[in-house]
Amino acid sequence: MEPSAETHHDLQKSLRDIEELLSRQQRVEDLVRRQAMPRHDLVETLVHKQHLVELQSKLDHLHPADIAFILEALPLDERLLVWGMVKADRDGDILLEVSDAVRESLIETMAPAELVAAVEQLDTDELADLAPDLPSQVMEDVFRGLSTEEREQLRAAISYPEGSVGALMDFDLVSVRENVSLEVVLRYLRLFDELPNHTDQLFVVDREEHLRGVLPLNVLLINDPETEVAALMQVDAFSFTPTDEADHAAQAFERYDLVSVPVVDDKGKLLGRVTVNAVLDHIRETTEAEQLAQAGLREEEDIFASVWDSVRNRWVWLALNLVTALVASRVIGAFESSIEKLVALAALMPIVAGIGGNSGNQTITMIVRAIALGKVGLDSERRLFRKELNVALINGLLWGGLLGLVAWGLYGNWRLGLVMTSAMTLNLALAASVGVIVPMTMQKLGRDPAIGGSVMITAVTDSGGFFIFLGLATLFLI
Amino acid sequence: MEPSAETHHDLQKSLRDIEELLSRQQRVEDLVRRQAMPRHDLVETLVHKQHLVELQSKLDHLHPADIAFILEALPLDERLLVWGMVKADRDGDILLEVSDAVRESLIETMAPAELVAAVEQLDTDELADLAPDLPSQVMEDVFRGLSTEEREQLRAAISYPEGSVGALMDFDLVSVRENVSLEVVLRYLRLFDELPNHTDQLFVVDREEHLRGVLPLNVLLINDPETEVAALMQVDAFSFTPTDEADHAAQAFERYDLVSVPVVDDKGKLLGRVTVNAVLDHIRETTEAEQLAQAGLREEEDIFASVWDSVRNRWVWLALNLVTALVASRVIGAFESSIEKLVALAALMPIVAGIGGNSGNQTITMIVRAIALGKVGLDSERRLFRKELNVALINGLLWGGLLGLVAWGLYGNWRLGLVMTSAMTLNLALAASVGVIVPMTMQKLGRDPAIGGSVMITAVTDSGGFFIFLGLATLFLI
Repeated sequence: MEPSAETHHDLQKSLRDIEELLSRQQRVEDLVRRQAMPRHDLVETLVHKQHLVELQSKLDHLHPADIAFILEALPLDERLLVWGMVKADRDGDILLEVSDAVRESLIETMAPAELVAAVEQLDTDELADLAPDLPSQVMEDVFRGLSTEEREQLRAAISYPEGSVGALMDFDLVSVRENVSLEVVLRYLRLFDELPNHTDQLFVVDREEHLRGVLPLNVLLINDPETEVAALMQVDAFSFTPTDEADHAAQAFERYDLVSVPVVDDKGKLLGRVTVNAVLDHIRETTEAEQLAQAGLREEEDIFASVWDSVRNRWVWLALNLVTALVASRVIGAFESSIEKLVALAALMPIVAGIGGNSGNQTITMIVRAIALGKVGLDSERRLFRKELNVALINGLLWGGLLGLVAWGLYGNWRLGLVMTSAMTLNLALAASVGVIVPMTMQKLGRDPAIGGSVMITAVTDSGGFFIFLGLATLFLI
Repeated sequence: MEPSAETHHDLQKSLRDIEELLSRQQRVEDLVRRQAMPRHDLVETLVHKQHLVELQSKLDHLHPADIAFILEALPLDERLLVWGMVKADRDGDILLEVSDAVRESLIETMAPAELVAAVEQLDTDELADLAPDLPSQVMEDVFRGLSTEEREQLRAAISYPEGSVGALMDFDLVSVRENVSLEVVLRYLRLFDELPNHTDQLFVVDREEHLRGVLPLNVLLINDPETEVAALMQVDAFSFTPTDEADHAAQAFERYDLVSVPVVDDKGKLLGRVTVNAVLDHIRETTEAEQLAQAGLREEEDIFASVWDSVRNRWVWLALNLVTALVASRVIGAFESSIEKLVALAALMPIVAGIGGNSGNQTITMIVRAIALGKVGLDSERRLFRKELNVALINGLLWGGLLGLVAWGLYGNWRLGLVMTSAMTLNLALAASVGVIVPMTMQKLGRDPAIGGSVMITAVTDSGGFFIFLGLATLFLI
């Protein structure tokens, strides 16, 4: 066994090899084109063929997830060339792995019959994941090819909303009865060609498929084969229902180090299971969506997306921020006569607005995280409010005081310095208040406190900062 | 088996129950204090005792991870009360689970002998995780209690840097020889009291402990017990070395749906294994650190941290942002005479700066993510650069044009509108350039492109936006 293991570097190397092959092939095509050789002759070229054979063999040795990675890293034309060379029986697995944007680009090029052939080999829970992206005709054809049980599973899997345990669930499970011996279980397992991935436990059910307990493989393996399942099964094990929140399920997997968990309906009937790999994918998708949302990106941009797609993906955020900037601009506009009399105000006002935005974002980040982890009861609001206000006051006196001195030094006007210090302190207090109140209120209203808070903070601290600073200056300096 | 499964809600309920018990107890204490009853009489109060018994029984039924959660959610005095009531033999497991800030607060209250007793039951890889937080005297005592093999493991585990596979590794593994039958393996496993958690495969080694392959339990269970291990073991399975990057290992777990992976040294000798639960924890810690870093929070703030701790945690970021704001302020200061002549400039300039910051952050978020996923070769720089510039130009003409019209409408000066449009377009182009160049350059220099990019973008687009807008205005309007 090779102690290679540099999996990431290996994958990078595969990508570079394939890019190299593609670019060599491009050079051959260019050469041929310059000689005005017709396209079908080119395809016959020996060199060209040799590259394609090499490419084909490389692809055949890669895991579907790795091919998905490479497809995502290639520009559209090269991506479609590679996609065309992938063995048809792997298409389904690869479609499951690629990002939404790339999946769309691949599905567009496939004939309905090809698509049906690609996806009909998938498990029903995987089919449900792809369903929203497939033409309805394709889904109907696939549906007709399923057994009654599979149709029921597929209907159920599609019906669970994103973010629920049902959407993470698969139907690959091995169940046993409680009144048999381990010896019988062991012989039963030998009838399988293979066990489902992530089988760390067998599910013990009664005649009506009600979950009675679980039998971890670890327990099965270390105990005397004569023992009955009932004597060893764990009856207080975890289970989920399909409507439980996926986020909570993920927290349970992390907290209790789980590998698979049974999913049961209201009556305790075993429906399926959730495995740790589905949870890993869920966590990754959730954090990625959050990262993108923070910069106002509505969806993952394929790196090779067209300029127009990028503009469309980003415009809502820019428009929203422009509106808040315009409001802030009108606040300044209301004080134009003060600025005309004391132009130093124009230079100093962005500092007051800026520190409010930065500090408010720190507060909201802390609180949103604490809410997400379930650590903030509604009764903590006053305590947190007081703490954040105190932090704001200290920072105001500290940084506000410092900047007040700077303003005094720059403009030789101590009253301007005093206005600067007061405005910064007040804007920090405003930022702290909004940073606590906005996420707590959103939580009370049952909305996601992570969304939109940052824009709101910046809007308030910009307009508020300008208003406080220019207002104080107008009152005391003009 | 109960179809309960609302694990998250259950935990919230436990927390509320405990808070309720603590507050009832507080009321008894208050009552007693008002009657000036001496403290030791209070402890004897029946009501008080009853609450504590109830609390104790609740705690005894909770998983260590749940007790950790509750300790984190309680203010310091109540936290220490609960901590004192936890059975001593669970202290070690709980210390492993709590956040750094809370762990510190708990360790501070424990006598060295208590600490030694708490941690000496842990595995060596867990000990290594706690080691940085333990007093050196405690570590020495624990070290003396270890076997030679354990000492070696502990030394190794401590030596691997954070972020390496070595730091995720544990030493709980079951290894077998290749020249025995499955029957022998099954009998060998029955000698164990229990198998290590996350044992989804056995490691096949030779006499010198070199890894020869792996035997998944799934394979062990479905095959004829007469078969030899050598005939069934997988020789091309994954392995890591301790110096591999933890992030890459995590990507492999996600990509290939792994549960455990062996770790070998340069010569192929089996050292330990990485399991999916360690990977889950690693992913969570990494994304949390990123989220905090984005708002300039240096570490997780315990929700009940003191005001001073919060100020210390946040000041670097505020200071850094104040410096960049001060630079921007001096840029404006250089154009004060222009603003005095045309005060509309003061009201419009934050719009120009703001759109640059927002758009630049979108660009840098896209590119940092693409780099992290390994999808951007160094040769993609020019392509990305061109694309982002095009997006900037379109947005400039679109939003810049719109705001130009607004400025014209507001101030009745079409030349001011034209300057507005040009300045916004140029600042968007500047943002796009910096958004591509900064992360790509950091990657080339081998530094983490995710850190500091956002501050740099905002600094450049603020100062740059003011300079471009006021500069153009001074040239063409004044």
